Amino acid sequence: MGMDRQALRRIITDESRLLFDSAIPVEYGSDALGRLRGDAEALVFALSTEEVSAVLRYASINRIPVTPRGAGTNLVGSTVPVHGGIILDLSRMNRILALDRNTMTITVEPGVLLQDVQAYVEGEGFFYPPDPGEKASTIGGNISTNAGGMRAVKYGVTRDYVRGLEVVLADGTVLRVGGKQVKDASGLPLKQLLIGSEGTLAVITQCLLRLLPKPETSVSVLVPYPDLDTGIRSVLTILRADANPTAVEFMERKIVALGEEFSGVRYPCPAAGSYILLTFDGHRGEVDDNVERVRKLALAGGAADYIVLSDPGQAADIWRVRGALVKAVEAVSEQEPVDIVVPISQTAAFIGFINALEQSSGMRMLSFGHAGDGNVHLCMLRGDRDEQTWERELRKNMEIAYAKAYQMGGVASGEHGIGLAKRPYLLRETPAENIMVMNRIKDALDPLHILNDQKSYITARDGALD
Amino acid sequence: MGMDRQALRRIITDESRLLFDSAIPVEYGSDALGRLRGDAEALVFALSTEEVSAVLRYASINRIPVTPRGAGTNLVGSTVPVHGGIILDLSRMNRILALDRNTMTITVEPGVLLQDVQAYVEGEGFFYPPDPGEKASTIGGNISTNAGGMRAVKYGVTRDYVRGLEVVLADGTVLRVGGKQVKDASGLPLKQLLIGSEGTLAVITQCLLRLLPKPETSVSVLVPYPDLDTGIRSVLTILRADANPTAVEFMERKIVALGEEFSGVRYPCPAAGSYILLTFDGHRGEVDDNVERVRKLALAGGAADYIVLSDPGQAADIWRVRGALVKAVEAVSEQEPVDIVVPISQTAAFIGFINALEQSSGMRMLSFGHAGDGNVHLCMLRGDRDEQTWERELRKNMEIAYAKAYQMGGVASGEHGIGLAKRPYLLRETPAENIMVMNRIKDALDPLHILNDQKSYITARDGALD
Repeated sequence: MGMDRQALRRIITDESRLLFDSAIPVEYGSDALGRLRGDAEALVFALSTEEVSAVLRYASINRIPVTPRGAGTNLVGSTVPVHGGIILDLSRMNRILALDRNTMTITVEPGVLLQDVQAYVEGEGFFYPPDPGEKASTIGGNISTNAGGMRAVKYGVTRDYVRGLEVVLADGTVLRVGGKQVKDASGLPLKQLLIGSEGTLAVITQCLLRLLPKPETSVSVLVPYPDLDTGIRSVLTILRADANPTAVEFMERKIVALGEEFSGVRYPCPAAGSYILLTFDGHRGEVDDNVERVRKLALAGGAADYIVLSDPGQAADIWRVRGALVKAVEAVSEQEPVDIVVPISQTAAFIGFINALEQSSGMRMLSFGHAGDGNVHLCMLRGDRDEQTWERELRKNMEIAYAKAYQMGGVASGEHGIGLAKRPYLLRETPAENIMVMNRIKDALDPLHILNDQKSYITARDGALD
Repeated sequence: MGMDRQALRRIITDESRLLFDSAIPVEYGSDALGRLRGDAEALVFALSTEEVSAVLRYASINRIPVTPRGAGTNLVGSTVPVHGGIILDLSRMNRILALDRNTMTITVEPGVLLQDVQAYVEGEGFFYPPDPGEKASTIGGNISTNAGGMRAVKYGVTRDYVRGLEVVLADGTVLRVGGKQVKDASGLPLKQLLIGSEGTLAVITQCLLRLLPKPETSVSVLVPYPDLDTGIRSVLTILRADANPTAVEFMERKIVALGEEFSGVRYPCPAAGSYILLTFDGHRGEVDDNVERVRKLALAGGAADYIVLSDPGQAADIWRVRGALVKAVEAVSEQEPVDIVVPISQTAAFIGFINALEQSSGMRMLSFGHAGDGNVHLCMLRGDRDEQTWERELRKNMEIAYAKAYQMGGVASGEHGIGLAKRPYLLRETPAENIMVMNRIKDALDPLHILNDQKSYITARDGALD
């Protein structure tokens, strides 16, 4: 099972795109957090589908583990080369290949950054709605985790904007799924299976994305509430009112305070216990109508104020604080990000539970997230704990938080994925028959467990890679 | 491999729900068209998940083929018991179990009819958007084919409204996938794989559906164009204008003429070569704005008129003709329905090709469908051909039509599914590696090929069921 370096050199003939052992920069052994690490023997920067196919074919024949990688912005250890082997980096396959105005689609390579796709299509009068916090992530990575983001309330998640994919299976087979047609009831929905599969079934080499017309205008509104319960209850009323908000974010006062300190921007109504931050987009008249519709509902639902951010400078400031929350937390302490999603009706109760856990455990916990879809971004803070204490207490609190989320009808991850970091909690909470079916599909598509093994749902396959 | 009737009687103790051989009504051997037929040994009307599980477990242990069935409204032979065995009818599991106003979801059994779900939720102030032509179909059937329909332009298809499923695997294992949470990036997307799998991987026993707030108002507009090309080109402009139409239907004049005759209703502008029928829904102001926005675009795009159907009686009449097109065709001749979907930019070219094929082949062909998503409902008419001639010429023309659709970047079915009737064309046009992967997944989930074998993408597994 040793790696034949000459064989790899025959596939990747450009020396600058094939590194071995100590020549591999250390950050390629981890993710954006850098806590989980692995050592690979080779790092390949692929430039084409043919190269990806040849590398995977070689790896499959020789049973060498492969870890696909985009920009490495993931937060759950997805890009950690657990078993060594080859890191297959797609970040240089980053071309925008074609814009088709008639079908409103764009064809891109997987390594193109989300921010570059967004900027390009907006320059052409179109709009790519998926909007996860990390804009320097790759489109291939977004598809692999089915990335969500703030605009999911109105526009859905990455899955809803993937029209077609070209992927390479573990054995090197190139597969094209989906296409420019809008509907598809023609055989098993392979595209749907591949979206969100975290690089465990195939490596994405080309993406056909669906675009929308660019909305005419966008308006944000900041709504302070006395407490989070009142805010979340009010959101449920707003969502039932057909006012079509694009984003509905919630922030507890305690995390906003950190964000203010970090950004040097103050939020109005500092006495509020929580804030809801809404965006509306579309044609001017429709947006104005919806802003007014929600004003009545919010004030009737207990809001302390309803601040339409019509000054672009003020809107940018308010969003800057929201966008910097994770960095603001990290300026204070190392943290473990949690991406739990619960039914929207359970969001307030879940955060109430977390606040009680913060009290009883003594570990600082801060919440914000997407009130419109129950996706809670919870940060558990290390503080001054030594490594062992931190690991032990974190594990215990995480187990409690995940158990509660599942008990409430939620799941481990709304948009970050499972990777390596959340795998123990997923395996603990998911019914055995679901894990069994996932593993049967893994076995069917990657029988030698070459691709991203021991990530996500995958049960170790004894002896296959060790 | 013989069937042990006593064993089945121990599972289904109510005699009226377990029929054998000649006691099975003949319509259970076929679909809505009645052309493809099979004979089953047993017909079971299941009432619970436990019964479904016990029947499948029995069938799996004894390698008896099972054909799941809802209302039997499918058009592609999905419910034909090709290999005999058991017909597993879910139509009596038709209860609405729970409405959750906070998460805007409804829990139903699979046998409930679409029209009953629509009526129930609208009575409660909610809206279930999927709207295939056949409203007496079951929700389980809709999910199995990922049914689309007219409102797909704005609201998407059935897939977009399935939050969770309970299913039973071929071996009797009960599996719950998805849930009330909105986002999910927690392991392989099993729910997505099951939606649209045409009963080949599992039998659906419970459905959790997503609802929307009921739109305040809805307005339809009829737009006559000199010819179909101009109409479709105009639609592309309309779709790019962010006017958010709910439905964008097209009809050639020649099929409208049949519909008029059948319904006794006349369309305005009889000199038009084609019609586009639009609907807009939402709040009054937004709908009015969009209707006016599209008026300008349509008239600039060559429309002969722009008829806002503000009189409810007139609107109902116009839609009655659209809704009766298939029946109008069938009043003239037996027909084979085709459900091809092409990229929206290719719709006009595809229908142009079909019109040329009609000329060259001498077989009458009529088209209508969803201009907003390229889904063409093409009817090929038997006329007075004898059985053999009809089969031969139909097969030849179908092969030509499907080959052209795939060449244009389309696929065999937008919403009807593949079943038995479209299987030869799917297998002919789909790359071998895609069929291989579909079959590997089938083998992984239903290794004995119990469920709906030899339907859709499934390659015969020699000896498994014969």
